[in-house]
Amino acid sequence: MCTAISYLSHDHYFGRNLDLGYGYKETVTITPRRYPFRFRRMQTLSEHYAMIGMATVMDGYPLYYEATNEHGLSMAGLNFPHSARYLSEKIGWDNIASFELIGWVLGQCADTLQARALLEKVRLIDIPFRGDLPPAPLHWMLCDARSSLVAEPAADGLKLYDDPAGVLTNEPPFPYHLYRLADHSHLSSAEAEDGAAYCVGMPAIGLPGDFSSPSRFVRAAFVKSNSVSSGPGAGDVRQFFHILSSVAMPRGSVRLAGGEYDITRYSCCCDTRRGIYYYTTYDNSQIIGVDMGREDLDRDALITYPLMDAPQITIQN
Amino acid sequence: MCTAISYLSHDHYFGRNLDLGYGYKETVTITPRRYPFRFRRMQTLSEHYAMIGMATVMDGYPLYYEATNEHGLSMAGLNFPHSARYLSEKIGWDNIASFELIGWVLGQCADTLQARALLEKVRLIDIPFRGDLPPAPLHWMLCDARSSLVAEPAADGLKLYDDPAGVLTNEPPFPYHLYRLADHSHLSSAEAEDGAAYCVGMPAIGLPGDFSSPSRFVRAAFVKSNSVSSGPGAGDVRQFFHILSSVAMPRGSVRLAGGEYDITRYSCCCDTRRGIYYYTTYDNSQIIGVDMGREDLDRDALITYPLMDAPQITIQN
Amino acid sequence: MCTAISYLSHDHYFGRNLDLGYGYKETVTITPRRYPFRFRRMQTLSEHYAMIGMATVMDGYPLYYEATNEHGLSMAGLNFPHSARYLSEKIGWDNIASFELIGWVLGQCADTLQARALLEKVRLIDIPFRGDLPPAPLHWMLCDARSSLVAEPAADGLKLYDDPAGVLTNEPPFPYHLYRLADHSHLSSAEAEDGAAYCVGMPAIGLPGDFSSPSRFVRAAFVKSNSVSSGPGAGDVRQFFHILSSVAMPRGSVRLAGGEYDITRYSCCCDTRRGIYYYTTYDNSQIIGVDMGREDLDRDALITYPLMDAPQITIQN
Amino acid sequence: MCTAISYLSHDHYFGRNLDLGYGYKETVTITPRRYPFRFRRMQTLSEHYAMIGMATVMDGYPLYYEATNEHGLSMAGLNFPHSARYLSEKIGWDNIASFELIGWVLGQCADTLQARALLEKVRLIDIPFRGDLPPAPLHWMLCDARSSLVAEPAADGLKLYDDPAGVLTNEPPFPYHLYRLADHSHLSSAEAEDGAAYCVGMPAIGLPGDFSSPSRFVRAAFVKSNSVSSGPGAGDVRQFFHILSSVAMPRGSVRLAGGEYDITRYSCCCDTRRGIYYYTTYDNSQIIGVDMGREDLDRDALITYPLMDAPQITIQN
Repeated sequence: MCTAISYLSHDHYFGRNLDLGYGYKETVTITPRRYPFRFRRMQTLSEHYAMIGMATVMDGYPLYYEATNEHGLSMAGLNFPHSARYLSEKIGWDNIASFELIGWVLGQCADTLQARALLEKVRLIDIPFRGDLPPAPLHWMLCDARSSLVAEPAADGLKLYDDPAGVLTNEPPFPYHLYRLADHSHLSSAEAEDGAAYCVGMPAIGLPGDFSSPSRFVRAAFVKSNSVSSGPGAGDVRQFFHILSSVAMPRGSVRLAGGEYDITRYSCCCDTRRGIYYYTTYDNSQIIGVDMGREDLDRDALITYPLMDAPQITIQN
Repeated sequence: MCTAISYLSHDHYFGRNLDLGYGYKETVTITPRRYPFRFRRMQTLSEHYAMIGMATVMDGYPLYYEATNEHGLSMAGLNFPHSARYLSEKIGWDNIASFELIGWVLGQCADTLQARALLEKVRLIDIPFRGDLPPAPLHWMLCDARSSLVAEPAADGLKLYDDPAGVLTNEPPFPYHLYRLADHSHLSSAEAEDGAAYCVGMPAIGLPGDFSSPSRFVRAAFVKSNSVSSGPGAGDVRQFFHILSSVAMPRGSVRLAGGEYDITRYSCCCDTRRGIYYYTTYDNSQIIGVDMGREDLDRDALITYPLMDAPQITIQN
Repeated sequence: MCTAISYLSHDHYFGRNLDLGYGYKETVTITPRRYPFRFRRMQTLSEHYAMIGMATVMDGYPLYYEATNEHGLSMAGLNFPHSARYLSEKIGWDNIASFELIGWVLGQCADTLQARALLEKVRLIDIPFRGDLPPAPLHWMLCDARSSLVAEPAADGLKLYDDPAGVLTNEPPFPYHLYRLADHSHLSSAEAEDGAAYCVGMPAIGLPGDFSSPSRFVRAAFVKSNSVSSGPGAGDVRQFFHILSSVAMPRGSVRLAGGEYDITRYSCCCDTRRGIYYYTTYDNSQIIGVDMGREDLDRDALITYPLMDAPQITIQN
Repeated sequence: MCTAISYLSHDHYFGRNLDLGYGYKETVTITPRRYPFRFRRMQTLSEHYAMIGMATVMDGYPLYYEATNEHGLSMAGLNFPHSARYLSEKIGWDNIASFELIGWVLGQCADTLQARALLEKVRLIDIPFRGDLPPAPLHWMLCDARSSLVAEPAADGLKLYDDPAGVLTNEPPFPYHLYRLADHSHLSSAEAEDGAAYCVGMPAIGLPGDFSSPSRFVRAAFVKSNSVSSGPGAGDVRQFFHILSSVAMPRGSVRLAGGEYDITRYSCCCDTRRGIYYYTTYDNSQIIGVDMGREDLDRDALITYPLMDAPQITIQN
């Protein structure tokens, strides 16, 4: 389970918590402009926008969890196990496999308007990346600095929703989350005005704190919409991670049937204007950045950086 | 406002979030055994247990926020603005000012049993540290690896409570929080057994997520009691900070009357057996440690380390 | 706003709270079999099933709020102001105005299976009963002793949903309510097993108690699904009204923009097998019954009984 | 478990829900002025104020659940099983058994001021009414038209609290409930002002709806403080029962360990100025009144009226 956020402060930032019980050797992966982006049923994109994000690279192909391209358009796939429906392919549509969608969109679109137009032609088809890898049931959040969009694969095609909250978590389908958010619109970050208050924060009592998907949605939206950054750059980045921390999963709080635990394996924050991808991991709270601007983006080969996941503790004395 | 936690994993850890609108030039402060600990109405402790913790050092005196002594006994003061009552001094009691209490207890007691016995003789008196510094209204949590204790200054003296949750936040008086915790005892971190569940985490729906003191208490207790560490040492320390993050205050979520914001200025975690004090700050997520064992604890002068508060970001490429 | 309930105890019962700021001279109205049921775009039903329910009779036409027919099929219209969409008429469909729907269905169907088949052909059209009476935005619950159904008029036609909860309130569209119900499936009416409980009822803490539509849905479903009747007949009827009372609106709890209040103007319970319609009103708690079996159901004229709304208090001494 | 309420509308009303798994042959009982009120350790009151309320009369003695005296002072005992402590008798105090307290206070006091003064001298002693009837663990609510008071028997004596909410339920001790009420002081009965609302009642989302004692306290206080009566007399009385209904226990919602259910056996509402005691029962929703003014209050014998508990349904046709 996951939480993705679009945050407009002094600059625009996009990122997410990846909450899972296990990892897939994911790496920070830059796809330069001339990497030949292949698609099972569509023409290869031999030139396209460069992008940076987290991906499992398999057989030389970047299976992105989320990414931002050189124009700042960002996109993340999040778990959607009960409701996602992939279809059989059909002529007249852009037949795209779920694992191809981020590359297909970020490779060609510079903003959410273009992305929406492209997505309206997409048919998400039921093809696995490999025989041993069934398609992950996903929905997607896209954003640029101006707006956010959610795309959900339903039985009658890909549904597109405006996302005024700039947040996405998991089930149920997106409209539910906006209603849940409305349910909490009377909550406030302000100090109580009446004399009954005995501590700070009381006008937000009722804000959910469990780790279910709707509760993370509401909590993330509340913390984000009230968020105040200490300043541009590092201040914004740190603030972004504070927002993500408020909906992160500590090991033990979400126990799965098999005795495993969902934890926030990594949190990331992309400075979408500068193309710098920051991350922390469950074991390493140190913020690490990978700067797309430091790479030759006209190459044709993927560039990957393994996660710096080892605990880093500095002893001051 | 604050949250303090006692956490027994592979070792015992104690720490807290300090949630305030502003700082007081606090430093990690080690008080060695021969520092002459002076008290306004009691005899100076010319020899005592060494301790490490966060303090504002003023006029050469350590005003501790929380500390751990060389036997692992730990103690933190937390804001208690509506209910704290300090009294006039009285013969037959150990007349102690609120700002002296942590030094008085940690200087002389090796565990909570000794601390309870000492506290039963204490009368908290209404003396300011300086004319321009009125006594902060506080209550205290104490713990060793086996048990936790809460001390609250009421109009009829210092109330002592067992704290089976090993958590303390702020108002109202402590018994309220245990009742609130009982209100949530049917919530679970386990996966839902019935078919109605559409996402993970649903059996904990109802867990509060706002930043009021009772809600932080319940959330911290839930996350802590379900916590699973990845291993001893760094694993435990990182897990401790994950627990604290789940009740941390991002800037903006708690707005004060004057337009300020309560934020989690620092989070700390003391390995009480080894005497290593770890901390992070709002602006710096990197874990910093100060190891009491690296100092000469037989000195008579305070040892202080300023907070490493500057944002630290490592660029990986 | 309203709450409708299907309750299977020793017999099957159907009823609802009608929550409004004002009344429309509603009467308990029996439509006998030969009342010529006219429809704006469809053939008149000159013979049909008899039905009993609450209606405003206007220009000789029964505008039913809810009713039960002689086979026990029941149907209620509930407020659905944000989402209801009525369409322009279209050839090939049964073009029915919203105010005609209850008569159309209950006049011809004996159970929910037949009703579903009939509703699949229905197109709800945007015709007012009179120029000064714009169509009320509604959705409908239907039930027999075996199952419940919800029908919602959307922009792309009438949506039909199974309603396993046997409850309907108002906005948002029906699927939301089932998700909300799932959110509370870990709550229980049983006594707490652990020692932390300090009073009865604690394992249901988290059950909502406000008067919004989703909260009434969840509360009604909880109370109904745990309901235990004292016995058949009067015991069941009284139990039904107890369930409805748990989601009734006391005057003052829901203030409208104009200074009015939504209140539960009447509550009703139809013994669907015997065709007895029971009701109470806001001002009169005495249960009044109207028995369809006592009327000549082969007549062609409506039979109406005004609400006995005056407070009835018996002085015992 | 129970809920007691003081309600000031056009007149002052006091009443309660009695929520229990079983009954004790309770009757509406009038104690006239010359009934010799005997006390185990105190002088008999041979003349005293008359009172009316619900009582089990045993061995000729009225064991009141709640009552109102001829001056309008009212008092109810409510279950307090975890916290009530009765003491051994002690010279210098008014040693009163718990089952005597209502008679002792209502027999002698005309308002809450006098009651408070009397209660300050009371020591509640641990004497059963009969060997086979251990003292019920109770706390009490008292009120007149101006103010309410709560009395709780603790280990160090009877605690008296002002009760600004005019509500009492059960555990935990009273101060908890006022804090819980403050936790909900940002909830409102008004219509939402922002555009996010999709139904009425949303600004009260967060109001608890389960049947635990603190949740009934908060819900009753919310409904009562927002209550708007339709008019004096019958309007007020009916409104009072609507308030009580909002916290009543339908059979099945609260299951006890032995397989029994707590239900609202009776609800009552005393017009404290006129001395008319109204009630309904679980099985009979008809409001029944017993008017103290119709009796000869100078008698010396108890006057009792059995509960009219049989279901009353009027068939209108």
